[in-house]
Amino acid sequence: MGDNSLVIGFDLGGTKMHAAAVDAQGHVVHSERQKTVATDGADGVIDRMIGLCVRLRHELGPRGDDLRALCVGVPGGVDDERGMVDTAPNLGWSNVPLAARLSKVLGLPVFLDNDVRVAVLGEHAYGVGKGARTMVGIFVGTGVGGGIIVGGHAHHGGRGVAGEIGHMTLLPHGPRCGCGKRGCVEALASRTAMEREARKLIKNGWESRILKLMKKEGRDTLTSSVIEKALDLDDEVMTKVLKDAQYYLGLLAGNLANVLDPEVIVIGGGVAERLGERFVEPIRNHAYKHFLVQRDREKVRIVATELKDLAAPLGAAFIARQRLLGRLDSAPGARHGTASWPVPSA
Amino acid sequence: MGDNSLVIGFDLGGTKMHAAAVDAQGHVVHSERQKTVATDGADGVIDRMIGLCVRLRHELGPRGDDLRALCVGVPGGVDDERGMVDTAPNLGWSNVPLAARLSKVLGLPVFLDNDVRVAVLGEHAYGVGKGARTMVGIFVGTGVGGGIIVGGHAHHGGRGVAGEIGHMTLLPHGPRCGCGKRGCVEALASRTAMEREARKLIKNGWESRILKLMKKEGRDTLTSSVIEKALDLDDEVMTKVLKDAQYYLGLLAGNLANVLDPEVIVIGGGVAERLGERFVEPIRNHAYKHFLVQRDREKVRIVATELKDLAAPLGAAFIARQRLLGRLDSAPGARHGTASWPVPSA
Repeated sequence: MGDNSLVIGFDLGGTKMHAAAVDAQGHVVHSERQKTVATDGADGVIDRMIGLCVRLRHELGPRGDDLRALCVGVPGGVDDERGMVDTAPNLGWSNVPLAARLSKVLGLPVFLDNDVRVAVLGEHAYGVGKGARTMVGIFVGTGVGGGIIVGGHAHHGGRGVAGEIGHMTLLPHGPRCGCGKRGCVEALASRTAMEREARKLIKNGWESRILKLMKKEGRDTLTSSVIEKALDLDDEVMTKVLKDAQYYLGLLAGNLANVLDPEVIVIGGGVAERLGERFVEPIRNHAYKHFLVQRDREKVRIVATELKDLAAPLGAAFIARQRLLGRLDSAPGARHGTASWPVPSA
Repeated sequence: MGDNSLVIGFDLGGTKMHAAAVDAQGHVVHSERQKTVATDGADGVIDRMIGLCVRLRHELGPRGDDLRALCVGVPGGVDDERGMVDTAPNLGWSNVPLAARLSKVLGLPVFLDNDVRVAVLGEHAYGVGKGARTMVGIFVGTGVGGGIIVGGHAHHGGRGVAGEIGHMTLLPHGPRCGCGKRGCVEALASRTAMEREARKLIKNGWESRILKLMKKEGRDTLTSSVIEKALDLDDEVMTKVLKDAQYYLGLLAGNLANVLDPEVIVIGGGVAERLGERFVEPIRNHAYKHFLVQRDREKVRIVATELKDLAAPLGAAFIARQRLLGRLDSAPGARHGTASWPVPSA
């Protein structure tokens, strides 16, 4: 790869998708986003993904010829070797041969990884975690996902499923988690858990503007934007529910620090992107209280995402570049971008 | 180091010490042990350590000249660079310049590390964890200690304090731990915690032979041997207390597996050495239930220590050899064993 090469880092979310053309220095040359529309099924979503890449390439003008690879962060489990999405519950996918489908049309090598793992790698390569040897990412959204860097590299584990920090049990007899267990962090501190607790309090007679705010947004769900608006109104329910979630996230961060002693714990995902330090500060305070070793505790930096919604595209771009280098090493004839891309439709 | 070289792996425990002369293949050529007698103070204990090494060297005969280094596993925190024991609560030590004191008399390079971390390394180098890339050790004794291997190497973390798995909070409002927090694994599943719970049940009227067994041993504390004898008598209190501890240890193992996805989780320490699979099986069953990813769960081997009380001496020997190699690389003039060792006293 020459210095002019570009790769596409693609963040495939349950509600929206985001593709960025990234250069060798980690700069976003151009990015495009659009809705995912998971209800269209895998074929529909893949068509939209292709459409977005085509638009991106078109916007790049002559630099479109410098595109060398694509990596997609998928909200679920992937088998990168076979290029398959094993399961992506938010998309309703199982066993989708995503890499082959994209590669065939786009004429680029396509790599897959998990979206949260990709975002943590993004923060490590280009964001708050630059240079860290040990780092943990805690991503709070509809679930709680994570990723782990050890020795400066992504840690995958023996079965390739490391980093499932959202399913650390923190309250053995706590609320039921989507995974079937009780008292996982995800069942205590995800947006879904916050919404469940908020609805419970409201049902029990607490006054709150949350339901109205949700209706106003027309999605009837506790989005990060609803959380922020409710906090700005000093909504009692929102304040309590967020505080409880922050306590458990602090406990999680403290437990992870006692186990791994990382240099950085990055808190990401929609809520952290929107609230920033307002979200992270109480988490940090609880976490520090739970450190066994208090000496130099501030050397464990607990910080909000810096790259925000670019963390996943940049991490995916980083992976694309790494894998491409690895692949080129072993297979010098690997496919490059072709000039046969379709013209974007309006 | 020639192939004939020997190193001493030294396990300094709160009640007994154990020194092993280990060859390049990890075989114990000879080992010696004796009581620690912490009440004698640091000077007394160090004198006994020197005495044990002298006896070991004497027993080795002419091979004593092949000794090249010594590494001590210390029950506490160490600063290996300065050769200091920072704190060792069970010994009542703080800021003891152990390496210099031993090195001066024995004429060998002396290295220090934490006893549990050393034992986990022993199991990784020569025991159940041979060849594992990712491995976790859970050591149950008066406390609950641990160690982590990632990428085939000991993981120390940014401040060098990784592996404090005994202070993972599992029950936020649970019993107070020695560290001041509530509901740490150590406060739920160590021998100390088991004894506390047993005494509580007995006070509440449960019938039990535990107190008599403890008195018979003359130490008035719940040792591994008392635990075994009580279990053999189908003692109700012991059965319940052990079962609860195993539940929490299973939860810990499950949480660690979800985070790190290790190939091996080794359960060590006095109770595991004595009870073996009888101790580990329920822990394994609980842990597996708490895995988020059930696929190939048996690829995460959850097993009892294989090396038992040789885990720490062998791990220390492994470290001595590694450090010596590193040191020899950078300082070819490093000290070798001298011929000036004192003759052992009767």
